[in-house]
Parts: sequence; C-alpha cells; structure tokens
Amino acid sequence: MGVTAAVAGASGYGGGELLRLLLGHPEIEIGALAANTSTGLPVTDVHPNLPDLDGRVFTDAESLAASEADIVFLALPHGQSGAVAASLPRGTRVVDLGADHRLADAAAWQRAYGGEHAGVWTYGLPELPGARPLIAASSRVAAPGCYPTASSLALAPLLAAGLVEPRDLSVVAASGTSGAGRSAKVNLLGSEVMGDLTAYKVGTHQHRPEIVQTLSAVAGTAVSVSFTPVLAPLPRGILATCSGRAVPGTDADAVYEALRAAYAGEPFVRVLPPGRWPHAAATLGGNAVHVQGTYDAESGRAIVVSAIDNLGKGAAGQALQCANLMLGLPEATGLTAQGISP
Amino acid sequence: MGVTAAVAGASGYGGGELLRLLLGHPEIEIGALAANTSTGLPVTDVHPNLPDLDGRVFTDAESLAASEADIVFLALPHGQSGAVAASLPRGTRVVDLGADHRLADAAAWQRAYGGEHAGVWTYGLPELPGARPLIAASSRVAAPGCYPTASSLALAPLLAAGLVEPRDLSVVAASGTSGAGRSAKVNLLGSEVMGDLTAYKVGTHQHRPEIVQTLSAVAGTAVSVSFTPVLAPLPRGILATCSGRAVPGTDADAVYEALRAAYAGEPFVRVLPPGRWPHAAATLGGNAVHVQGTYDAESGRAIVVSAIDNLGKGAAGQALQCANLMLGLPEATGLTAQGISP
Amino acid sequence: MGVTAAVAGASGYGGGELLRLLLGHPEIEIGALAANTSTGLPVTDVHPNLPDLDGRVFTDAESLAASEADIVFLALPHGQSGAVAASLPRGTRVVDLGADHRLADAAAWQRAYGGEHAGVWTYGLPELPGARPLIAASSRVAAPGCYPTASSLALAPLLAAGLVEPRDLSVVAASGTSGAGRSAKVNLLGSEVMGDLTAYKVGTHQHRPEIVQTLSAVAGTAVSVSFTPVLAPLPRGILATCSGRAVPGTDADAVYEALRAAYAGEPFVRVLPPGRWPHAAATLGGNAVHVQGTYDAESGRAIVVSAIDNLGKGAAGQALQCANLMLGLPEATGLTAQGISP
Amino acid sequence: MGVTAAVAGASGYGGGELLRLLLGHPEIEIGALAANTSTGLPVTDVHPNLPDLDGRVFTDAESLAASEADIVFLALPHGQSGAVAASLPRGTRVVDLGADHRLADAAAWQRAYGGEHAGVWTYGLPELPGARPLIAASSRVAAPGCYPTASSLALAPLLAAGLVEPRDLSVVAASGTSGAGRSAKVNLLGSEVMGDLTAYKVGTHQHRPEIVQTLSAVAGTAVSVSFTPVLAPLPRGILATCSGRAVPGTDADAVYEALRAAYAGEPFVRVLPPGRWPHAAATLGGNAVHVQGTYDAESGRAIVVSAIDNLGKGAAGQALQCANLMLGLPEATGLTAQGISP
Repeated sequence: MGVTAAVAGASGYGGGELLRLLLGHPEIEIGALAANTSTGLPVTDVHPNLPDLDGRVFTDAESLAASEADIVFLALPHGQSGAVAASLPRGTRVVDLGADHRLADAAAWQRAYGGEHAGVWTYGLPELPGARPLIAASSRVAAPGCYPTASSLALAPLLAAGLVEPRDLSVVAASGTSGAGRSAKVNLLGSEVMGDLTAYKVGTHQHRPEIVQTLSAVAGTAVSVSFTPVLAPLPRGILATCSGRAVPGTDADAVYEALRAAYAGEPFVRVLPPGRWPHAAATLGGNAVHVQGTYDAESGRAIVVSAIDNLGKGAAGQALQCANLMLGLPEATGLTAQGISP
Repeated sequence: MGVTAAVAGASGYGGGELLRLLLGHPEIEIGALAANTSTGLPVTDVHPNLPDLDGRVFTDAESLAASEADIVFLALPHGQSGAVAASLPRGTRVVDLGADHRLADAAAWQRAYGGEHAGVWTYGLPELPGARPLIAASSRVAAPGCYPTASSLALAPLLAAGLVEPRDLSVVAASGTSGAGRSAKVNLLGSEVMGDLTAYKVGTHQHRPEIVQTLSAVAGTAVSVSFTPVLAPLPRGILATCSGRAVPGTDADAVYEALRAAYAGEPFVRVLPPGRWPHAAATLGGNAVHVQGTYDAESGRAIVVSAIDNLGKGAAGQALQCANLMLGLPEATGLTAQGISP
Repeated sequence: MGVTAAVAGASGYGGGELLRLLLGHPEIEIGALAANTSTGLPVTDVHPNLPDLDGRVFTDAESLAASEADIVFLALPHGQSGAVAASLPRGTRVVDLGADHRLADAAAWQRAYGGEHAGVWTYGLPELPGARPLIAASSRVAAPGCYPTASSLALAPLLAAGLVEPRDLSVVAASGTSGAGRSAKVNLLGSEVMGDLTAYKVGTHQHRPEIVQTLSAVAGTAVSVSFTPVLAPLPRGILATCSGRAVPGTDADAVYEALRAAYAGEPFVRVLPPGRWPHAAATLGGNAVHVQGTYDAESGRAIVVSAIDNLGKGAAGQALQCANLMLGLPEATGLTAQGISP
Repeated sequence: MGVTAAVAGASGYGGGELLRLLLGHPEIEIGALAANTSTGLPVTDVHPNLPDLDGRVFTDAESLAASEADIVFLALPHGQSGAVAASLPRGTRVVDLGADHRLADAAAWQRAYGGEHAGVWTYGLPELPGARPLIAASSRVAAPGCYPTASSLALAPLLAAGLVEPRDLSVVAASGTSGAGRSAKVNLLGSEVMGDLTAYKVGTHQHRPEIVQTLSAVAGTAVSVSFTPVLAPLPRGILATCSGRAVPGTDADAVYEALRAAYAGEPFVRVLPPGRWPHAAATLGGNAVHVQGTYDAESGRAIVVSAIDNLGKGAAGQALQCANLMLGLPEATGLTAQGISP
C-alpha cells in the first residue's frame, strides 16, 4: 500500500512486540527503527525472536524526522516522547505508547511522572464510548497504559449503566514482569520474581490518575479508585480484579448484561460465558480483553475481572489498533483476538 | 520428651510440609503416617525430598486410633476429619489442618462445604487477641485456612483499633498452586498455570465465612468482606491485598502504628519497615507473616498487604505452632521465621 | 479456496495449537473438530484462547469420515491413529501428528509404544535432504515428534557432511511440560514442575528409535544415540544439546559451515550468528528452529544446540507445513518464523 | 560455644543462603557481615527473608581482619578472595565459596578466569575419596563450584570403579538462575528467563577445568569432559546429566552398585531407589545430592543424573559442611538433607 511505519524505542519490550505485529501486517512496511542505547546494533541481537529483521540495524531517534514515515510509533520511557514528536513533520501520524500524552491535567501528570507535561493527545482506547471517530480523525494519539486498559474496560460499563457508585472503586491488578520494561534491575531478576508475589507503589502508582480520568469521563462525575498493582511471576499478562459499591437494585444479571451490551460486536473484547472467569494466559500474544462480572450480595459490591496481554492490548496491539483507525484501514488488520496456549 | 505425633493425610502437600517440620522438631517423634490412597507405599516415593523417612510406609487412617500417639495432625480433605477424630482416644490432642472444625455456624459450614457439620474446635490462630491461652488449654484445635490467616492478620489490627468500618472490607488474594492440593486436575497442570493468572470462586470461596467469623469477633460486630482469590504461577505463597473504608481521622501513621502495636513481640509476624511491601518469596518454607499498611487518602481506604507461605503459616507451620502451645512447649520450637531466598 | 480441514484430537495441546494456526491460514477452512472425551462440549470451553471458535462444538472421531474434509489432521494419543485413518476416504489427505506412522520398523515401534504397528507413512520433516517432493506427493504423512525434530535437524548436517562419527551421538534435551500432553497427572501439576528439573525415561524414551531412523538414513549407516529427556518448568519449548565425536580434521568453522550450508534458504531454520546460542523462548508460538554449533577441542566433540517450540515446529506448525506441501500451497502459508517475546 | 563466623560478600545469593544456615546453626554465632557495595545498609533491606538479622548492618571487607572471627566465609566474585584472605590473621579458618583457590594449575585458572592466580587451597568436597581428613586439617578450604559438585559426585564413582573410560565424558547441566548471581543484567531478567531455556558458554565455561581436575584425580589419569551448561527458568537447582563410554562388561547393575557403594553411609548423598530419577526440587533449601544411574546398551554409555540445590550443596551448604569439619563439629550440624517441597 505504501504505508511506512517508524518506531522510536524499538529495542524495548513494547517496541519489540510492535515489530512482531508490524511484520505480520499486510499494509504496513517497517521503516526506521530507533533505539538510542542500541544505535548501530543489529535488531536481531536484541530481538532474536524476529529473524525476518535480519540485516536491520537500530538508528538513533534523531534520524526519525528524516525517515519520511507515514506513521511513527513512540515506545519510549516517559518524558522522552514530547521532544521526538516535536521533531516530526506536522502531518506525520504519531501513536505514543508511552505515558507522556495521556493526561489532560498537567499538574496530575507532573505529580505522577515528574518533569514537564508534554501536552495531551487523543486517548486511544477504541472501545470507550465515542472514541473511534476521535481516534480516526487524529494525527496524534496516546495509547493507554496497560493497567488503565484492563481497569477501565472492566469498570466503564458498570459506571455507564449506573450500576455502581463512582466513589470507592477498587482495582487490584497483578501483572507479569514485562510491564516493568527491559531494564536491568535487581528486583526484576528472574531469581527474584520467580516464586514471588509483591505489591508495589501502593496508592502511588502513576497509572491511577489515568484510570481516574477515563472513568470520570465515563461516569460523568469524578470517581475515586483505590489501585494496588501486584508483580507476579509470569512474563506477560494482567489480571485486574475491579469492583465498585453497587447501587440498590443491582444484581448479577444486571452486571453481566451491562458488560454484554457494552461490548456487543467488539472484535477484541470477549465477555466470557457465565461461570467462566478470565485467564491471562488465554490472551497471550493477542489483542483480546477477556471480562467476566458478578454481583456479590454479601459485600454489596459488583466485581468485574479482566485479563489482557500487557504487551498486546496493553501496549503494542492497542497502538496498532489505533493506527489502523488513523490510517483508514480495517481496525483489526494485522491483529488477532486469539491467544497462544498453553 | 517422649512426645509422639501421628499424621492423617500425610501424602498431601500440607501433610508433607508437616513431616518436614516434624523431622526438625527436637521434642517430637514421628509416629504413624496415614494416607488412605497411598497405604502401603514408601513415604519417600511420595516425598522424595524427605530422605530421613526412608523405610517408612504409609498406613491407613484406621490404624491411627491404635497408634498411641500423643498428638495427631489431620491433614485431610474436608468432610473426613470428624470421623477420624471420633475414632481417637478422648485425651489425644488433635490439630485439624482441614476445614471441618473451623466454623461455629453449622449452616454456614454446610453452605460452604456441603455435608454434615462436624462441630467447632478452638480456632488456632495464636496471634489473635486472647487466643493463646485457649489454644494451650484445648485438646482439639482447628488450624485456620491459608487465606483466612493472611487476611485476618492483615485486617484484625485495624478493626481492633477502630480505624476502618466493619462493612465493605475487601480482600484480593493471590495464591500459589499448592493451595489447591495434590490432586490431578487439568486446570492445575503446569502447562496451564505457568504464564497464567486467573480469578476463581469469585464471591463463593469457602474461606470467606471463616474470614468473616474471625474479623467479626475482633470487631465486635458483624463484618462484610468481598473476597476474590487469584491463582498465580508459583508453587507456594500468598499475597493478600486487604482494605477497609477508613473512619474519619485515620491516616497512614495510624494504620502503621496499629500494625506495630498489634504485633510487637510476635515471633512470626513482621511489620516491615516503612516503605517496604511484603514479598511472598521472603516467607518460603518458614512460619512468617510479613505485613505492611498505609492509608490511601484518594480512595479513603486503609490498605494492608500480607504475605505468608500457604503451606507454612498457612497450614503446617501454624498447626505445629498450635501443637507446641497445646503440649506446653516453647511456641517457636521447630519453627523459623526465616524464609528461603531466592 | 475451498480447502476444508478436520481435526481429530482437537482438545489436546497439539490440536489446540493447530486450531490457532488454522484460524490464521488464508486458504483453509476449519471443518469438523473431533475430541472423543469432550464430545458435545463447546470448543471455547477447552480453548478459551480461541474466541473465533465460539459456537463450535466437539464431535466424535467417527463423524470425521462423513465430514468430507479435504485434509484431516490426527492429533491423537499413540495407538489411535490407525483406526481413524482407515475410516477415512482413500483420497483424503491425512497428516498424523501422533507417533503411529513414523517408524518403518514394526518391531521397533512395538518396543517403543506397545500394541500393533499401524504401518509407516511418509516422514514429514521437510528440511531433511530430499524430503519435500516425497511429502508433496503423499496423501498420508507422519509428522515427526518434537524431540526428533530438534535432534535430527541439529545432527543431520554434521552426519551428512561426514564431520562426526555415526556411533555414540548424544542428545540431552530439555522440554516444556506441554510435551507431556493435557492429561491430569500428579507429576505434571504446576506445584510439582515449577521449580523442578528432572530426567525421565533415561535410555528408554519412545522418541529414540525415531531419531535413530532419521539420522541413520542421513548418515547412510546405522547410528547410535544416547538420549536423555529432561522436564523443565516452562509450558512450551525444547532446547536440545546434541553432540557427536568429531572425525579428524573437524573444527569449529567446519561445524558452523555445515549448518549454514544445510539450511541456506530454509524459511524456518535459523543458524544463529557466531557466538549466539539458541533460546527456546525466541521460538514461542512460531515454526522456527534456531541452531548453533561448534567444535570442542578438549573433548573432541562437535556440539550443536537447537531450539524449537514443541507445539510449533515440534507438532502443529510442522504438520501445517507438510499440509501446505501436500496441498500445493506455498510452504509457509499461515506459518511464521517469528516468535513471541518476552 | 564461642565460635564466631564472619562473611565477606554477604549480600549475594550464596552469602544470603549462608546467613540463613548460620542462623540455624547451634554452635556458631554470626559476626561481621561485609558487603562492599551495600556497606552501611541494613541486612534485612537486602535479605527481607531473614528477619532475625534485623538491626544488623553490612560493613566493608576491610573490617573483617579486625573482627576476630574464628572462621571467615568468602562469598565474593572471582579475583577478590585472595586479597581479603591475605588480610586475615594466619590462624583464622577460611572457607572460600568463590573460584579463586580451587585450581592447582595457575595457567588453567588464568585461562578460565583471567587475572592472577591466588593459589590453591584444600578442595572442599567431603564425599570425594580421602577428602575429609584433609579438610579437617586445613585452615583454608576452597568450596567447589555448583556444577563441579553435581558433575563430580555423579561421575567419580564410575571412574573409581573403572566402569567408564576417562576420555569423552559428557556433562549437560541445567541450572536455575541464582547460579548467575545477584547482578542486574538484562539476560537474567525474569521477563527473559521465564519461559526460556538456553545453552551458554558452550565449551568455554570456567567450571570445566575444575571438573577435569577432580575427576582426573579420581581416575588417576587425565580425563576429558564435554560440558554444556543450560540456563533454566527456576531460581535454584541443578540437574546434571552425566555420561561416559562404558568399558566392556559394564551393565546397569554395576553402575548402580558403584553409586551405592561409593555413597553408603553418606549423610547428604542419596542414591535413589531403582527406577526413580532425581528431581532438583527435592533438594531445595537442603544440602542433599540425589543421584541415579544406569547403563544404556544402545549407545554404550553409562549415564548418571544428579540433582542439587546450587545454593545449598552447590555453595553455602557445602561451605558449612566443610566448616563443621574444620571446627571439629559433627559434619551435619546446622545442615539438613531434607528439601522443601513442593
């Protein structure tokens, strides 16, 4: 077709997964691949799982501006996307997999990430009410974080349907280690994480304001969310246990039907049959979200559990889904709802 | 000395861990080892990790009555402890690692487990207020379940101190696979669980009434708890994320101090230094509980995270701790708060 | 196109992976899916990772004969393929992922598997010298076992080039647990395999005669192979460490060049750059084989290490590769050499 | 008793496991704990699994000389033990868990490790013929490496009994990740190692000369060994598949009896019952070695598989076993042959 995509941050986990998806995309050609710390290295030294990139070499981010790509994906650590985006031609479509352009509230962004706020772009979660046309019409899109994707898609239908109160929502989400990125830290060593479960950044995780922003918009009022992330011993996958205080009259059927109605026809969101709860493993390598919900009469809470691949629907898959919309391609091109199992 | 211990259900995971602990106990000799499905098999065929039991063979549960043990541990599937206990001499001390004698409310027991309620014994969680003398004076003790141990020790101090409301408590607890026992089920195969996270028995887990019973007693009023268990890819370990709506005036210091005060001097409960959150791996093979807590102003919830080894403090270690109390031995005999790491 | 594929044994791990591949195959439609023990169950109950099969139900193997499929895949336990194959129309193409039709020597088959030998079909390892035309011309093809695929592709080039002696070859191959199938056995529980490594069937594994048959054909003389399989804690992946006594004059360059020459132009075999050794994880979900080799002067052995996904190139991927050849389709249709990582 | 032990390198995995063992040792008190990169940090910041060390702080290695310890354990990266040992009083007993003093051949040491050879100490593998009196009489002992421990104990009995040829021995050993130490490297991240198997340092691993030295001494002639280490996804544990060309007349019984005879009465080496093969998991946390062997008529090789905990019998456990001998204590004091399972 002639669409060429460039990637900044192509040596990380999100960038690598994006490359894998792009290799299977029938309408996109892979252009410049930038990775500052790996500039000059063969791509397959870092990604030996991608033999079709044999012969390709990482460039630096500066080279992207001249690369004449039709679309550029930014898979950079927070704080770096703004400068790279600013260096690109105005008309170039850009999808930011990082956190820099997700929050409208500059002060909230600074509290969460530090440094200067780069501004806000269209939020790229296509399954939210009204999101698709905005994404399709945008040349700059901020793809959501992994935890916010899992959490927001779980709770949004209940808030939209008025089944739960907007205050005192709760999310406890366990994530595989790739969510922490490809950086050499002792606490992320295999020796440390295998056999372990640990909570971290309790009440302080930078993804909370993003969840709050999204769910407040859906609820039409400010929500409050308790958010506890848990590091679990698997490379990929998020399982989010989400709940809210049910309003009087809510029952299990209402919860289930709200999910079904919200996601009818969605190609990537699967509301499981009654009685089946999501498995993170069932989403491995795909762009699927699996959800199930119920009402717990004893505690008075509606509970929705969601599962995604944090590098798929939680990062690269979602970014490509947005890119398809931006490019006028069928939304599912190069994507799949099937997971690898076991 | 002369204390002899027999074990029913010695071929399971809880039973096996108990054997390991008993082998290292200076005051207890190992007597009859019953395991109905493995009767006649060498113990080391099932537990190759315990070479010191070479030469020992599993007997059947019927033989326990005649074994003249001073103390008998029951590590049986639910519904089987009552009959075995009834067959034992009145004076024989018995610790039940199973669920049969934990609940006072027969109807609640039947809803949770089905079948006939076997009665209620002294609840063997020594760190609860007032528990030790009762355990020491009892000849029959019901050791708590793994999830209730982790959950109750996390939330009890906050309820006792009046820092959280008794209604709408929440527990999301991830557990290693040994909690599901040593039974051949497809959903517990390594191929299925490695790389996976899944919620199960959402709102219906049989451990909830036990948590409710314990915390209601501590609170002095009926509590309600939302409880979601998550199966995680590690053999052992539980990480419980527990929370409650804070009453006005609660702050992070108050939460932390409540934990510190409740567990000052406790040999097996470690309130972590400020800023450190529990790692399940740090408790592996030991009888420790690690806890940390804070107040989340944004959601108005007090959050406490606890970690245990589900086969240690969550089963065999706790049973032995109770046995020590019942036998008049120092409580920590044959137990350790140190974990194996990494 | 009108090619319809049916699958017998569609509820197992190999069958499930085949379904995933067939869903992505542009020229094949999925016909009847048989799974005797799951007859009548929704396919997505067993394979929740494959939402595109929602609405499909497992049938029994008897129904396959009437299903009018153009090609039938058999992913059955050994001993069952013969009868099902016999029930199919003569002209129907059949690929057997199981062991029944791999060995020409009936006595060897009976020693390895017990029961009656079902006969021998064309051996479906396309990368072996001369294999492709035979496969393309066959209506019945036996896809190789996972260990034989990894071992034969590692050692065949050295034997063909005369660099190693045919006697005293050695293979020590570690495999993920899915190789043992989706059967509920205590020794395959997650609790047992996570954290464990164990050798099994040492000197008696049923895949050895297959390795011997293949390598003897390549060497033009009878070979002998020591074969030790090791069960490792990962769902998928085989890493085979293969060696042979080098003949005088063999050096590291000769070993490497033999691999390069043998696999030049092969779409699925990747001889890694010098100094890089295969990672099983780099092949996850794909049809790739990664190999690297050297000569160890100190021991006088040439060593080749190979990695595959045991359910990909070791089972379903290879079966589909053969099917493509049999159907006259481009060999790589619906297959990829890219792996999922991390 | 008054025996005080100091540790250099106490923040690493081997050092941490040693601390755990020392805490349970009835005759040894823990003295100075040095860890240069962590000097001044609380010990429980690094080892949260060891709450009994609350209040202790890491010092620097220089402080050890003045610490007046009766015995000093060195758990340092290679190249650092010599200087620290030289700084200690002559009479101080020293056990080096590192590689610096294991090889008699200075040139071999330099080829393997680079830098200057620090000299050779008594080799601390008590189960080798004649080793115990030498260790007991030494004030400086070099504890063996993890791979050499597993490999040498597997093959030594066959060489001593003359059942295998000294040339062309083979070892393929899979190890957990803690063997690579507690250093922040991308290739050791949990995201990288979970789900992976990879061979490394093929033909070049620094432990080979140590295996050769040990087995040559046992054989009474120079041996040659092919050695391939494999990194496997578990924190701890080694499974070594070892083989040698059998001399005529060797059969399975002879292999088994050689193992039984060699290890009769050994407290930590368990020759498994016939038909049972070692599980690394069965040795977790203990000082046990599990071995099994057979003769493979088809390949003409005798095969012995051994399992250890690389941080137990492969490092800290063995060091403590040597220390007990050096201090005149019962050899098994503070050690166990029982493993943690599952």
